[in-house]
Amino acid sequence: MSTTISPLAPQSYPDLPEIAGVRFATAEAGIRYKGRTDVLLAVMDKGTQAAGVFTRSKCPSAPVDWCRAKLKGGKARALVVNSGNANAFTGRNGREAVKLTASLAAKATGAPASEIFLASTGVIGEPLDATKFGGVLDDLVAKAKPDAMLEAAKAIMTTDTFPKVATAQAELGGIEVTVNGIAKGAGMIAPDMGTMLCFLFTDAPIGASALQSMLARAADSSMNAMTVDGDTSTSDTLMIFATGGAAGRGAPVIANPADAKLRSFKTALNAVLENLAKQVARDGEGARKFVEVNVTGAVSARSARRVARAIAESPLVKTAIAGEDANWGRVVMAVGKAGEPADRDRLSIAFNGIRVARKGERDPTYDEARVSAKMKEQDITIDVDLGLGKGRSRMWTCDLTKAYVEINGDYRS
Amino acid sequence: MSTTISPLAPQSYPDLPEIAGVRFATAEAGIRYKGRTDVLLAVMDKGTQAAGVFTRSKCPSAPVDWCRAKLKGGKARALVVNSGNANAFTGRNGREAVKLTASLAAKATGAPASEIFLASTGVIGEPLDATKFGGVLDDLVAKAKPDAMLEAAKAIMTTDTFPKVATAQAELGGIEVTVNGIAKGAGMIAPDMGTMLCFLFTDAPIGASALQSMLARAADSSMNAMTVDGDTSTSDTLMIFATGGAAGRGAPVIANPADAKLRSFKTALNAVLENLAKQVARDGEGARKFVEVNVTGAVSARSARRVARAIAESPLVKTAIAGEDANWGRVVMAVGKAGEPADRDRLSIAFNGIRVARKGERDPTYDEARVSAKMKEQDITIDVDLGLGKGRSRMWTCDLTKAYVEINGDYRS
Repeated sequence: MSTTISPLAPQSYPDLPEIAGVRFATAEAGIRYKGRTDVLLAVMDKGTQAAGVFTRSKCPSAPVDWCRAKLKGGKARALVVNSGNANAFTGRNGREAVKLTASLAAKATGAPASEIFLASTGVIGEPLDATKFGGVLDDLVAKAKPDAMLEAAKAIMTTDTFPKVATAQAELGGIEVTVNGIAKGAGMIAPDMGTMLCFLFTDAPIGASALQSMLARAADSSMNAMTVDGDTSTSDTLMIFATGGAAGRGAPVIANPADAKLRSFKTALNAVLENLAKQVARDGEGARKFVEVNVTGAVSARSARRVARAIAESPLVKTAIAGEDANWGRVVMAVGKAGEPADRDRLSIAFNGIRVARKGERDPTYDEARVSAKMKEQDITIDVDLGLGKGRSRMWTCDLTKAYVEINGDYRS
Repeated sequence: MSTTISPLAPQSYPDLPEIAGVRFATAEAGIRYKGRTDVLLAVMDKGTQAAGVFTRSKCPSAPVDWCRAKLKGGKARALVVNSGNANAFTGRNGREAVKLTASLAAKATGAPASEIFLASTGVIGEPLDATKFGGVLDDLVAKAKPDAMLEAAKAIMTTDTFPKVATAQAELGGIEVTVNGIAKGAGMIAPDMGTMLCFLFTDAPIGASALQSMLARAADSSMNAMTVDGDTSTSDTLMIFATGGAAGRGAPVIANPADAKLRSFKTALNAVLENLAKQVARDGEGARKFVEVNVTGAVSARSARRVARAIAESPLVKTAIAGEDANWGRVVMAVGKAGEPADRDRLSIAFNGIRVARKGERDPTYDEARVSAKMKEQDITIDVDLGLGKGRSRMWTCDLTKAYVEINGDYRS
């Protein structure tokens, strides 16, 4: 948690409607940080359905292994998240810490350990002392309340400079339901995914397998379309918990992800995830500018995504943006290195709506002063048209500044 | 050309033996820079054989297109290189600039345009005014001399802080032959390849197709094993020119790359390329530390290379090294993100010979103070054993510092 807030932080936080069936509490367990909360407990009503999408790292953290295994049941009663220590690459100690945390949480909540989900974020490779949770969990259960989501978002921060929350309303069988979400970044962020934790809560009565299918799809155009530094973490966890609390108000119970009644819910889910993904990019370590990369005209959507990612992760493109330089030559370089079909002589590139290059050379109307003025804006959009097909993709990232190097050059010390 | 020389620069330059059959000259053509040389002409004797390896960018520069086409003949009489402008993404103007340069050089040297090779490095997307070569080429031909290779290396620099030269001697059929090389970095450097220009000259009488085969192989473990920022340029060019000058002293003419007589030559070729590749990494933009990544125990050499590359290109690993932090957790992250077979519980990691992690957790003998002291050294070796097979690979890179961001945040301005 930095003392300097990102200049790209939102000006205010939305009011998050309460979700029937879930309560939150946070505590200072002293895992690593002093003088701030570092443990979050979310307690869910019986019958809560759960789904999750996790890091594709071949070296996942112990909590990721745990969640993957327990998700097979599709049911959740509690979520315990700590910041400051990722419990990753901690070997047998890590597995034991996970078991101990789950059993402590099971005892405190009265729920089976197999329905407790866990996430940890922070330093990799340091043993996590899970006995510290023992001292706070009973108290957390006692004080948990529905309207503490902003505090929840604060407790899971690491190098984030602001808490990330989002909310959207949907209609399910004529009944209003809510999707709330919290997330944290801010480095080791890359598609599939970043050191990104994101937890969504809804009162919609939707079954676990339908949730899983919708979540995986929504992640692809949100969390997986966002990159800070191209470094995929060992700990990425995106989960959704559906308490079913709206069933009491008459919302229908849905099991099939293709059910037409889910249309509005899917829109809300996408909106919350997109909102949180953009917030994570806006809080990328050292970020001074938010960048959206739109690639069109690729031979396929997959090809467009790869080109967009090559641009969004290029250190040279990102440092040029930090320097407010409309250096489209570096965008050409990034297109070229993506290895996807591209024809130099059909490429068009625009910065914030001003076309700077077309048909393989500088646009004849190019006016350096006009483009440079645009590059001073806080939000930068790079549009690249490959001129080959109909594939398109969008990615979000931030610039690469000296502050990124500073933050990561002395993170542990 | 920076005024601050990399702290990793060599203390002195080797004496480069003259290569019979090639002469060098440089000039200030005012392409972009003021008060320094920016054009190199190398004139080769009739019969000089040539081979080349070029960028895999899908958007190659106009000179790269030219060289690829002309290499089919296998013969070279001159090489013209300019710095300051890459003549990349310059459309029809770029193709015309290349043709004009070749015809001017053909006129000045009396050689056919099809045996003139060209390379350009610098800003992408700006039209190159090739008429500027017209004013200097006749003079360059007149003053070209065999002992000007260090000046040649200086003329092709962009953000390099020191010229890069290397030399090695070999024995060919009992006759001593020489391989000399020059190279330039220093950003937009990644395997396959960087904005890297590298030109080798030898007096060994070896045919073009044998040269091509040996060069491609040698590039794989040298230039393609080196990365600065993971950004592959549009202009990467590695060429070798064999004048055959040693034939007059009795060296045999070799056409077959498998000829046993080439053993010593291959060793020399590898040595020169490795030497130059390391120099390019040592002069990576903003570099303060040189890093060698050794991956062993992978399921294959290709897999090891991918893991090594993921580590060598990770901004978080590179910033940790800049911060002199033995942050092996980030190495685990990079192994995990490479997508190659890896088993967390078999991984071993060492920094400068000190094992910090083994079998999926911190080494029991881990001593932070001891490792931290090692991290203050200028050369850092990261050894990663995956414990799975016999695949191994080595890569060279540098740390990621604030100076990198500074250099690239205002390169054009």
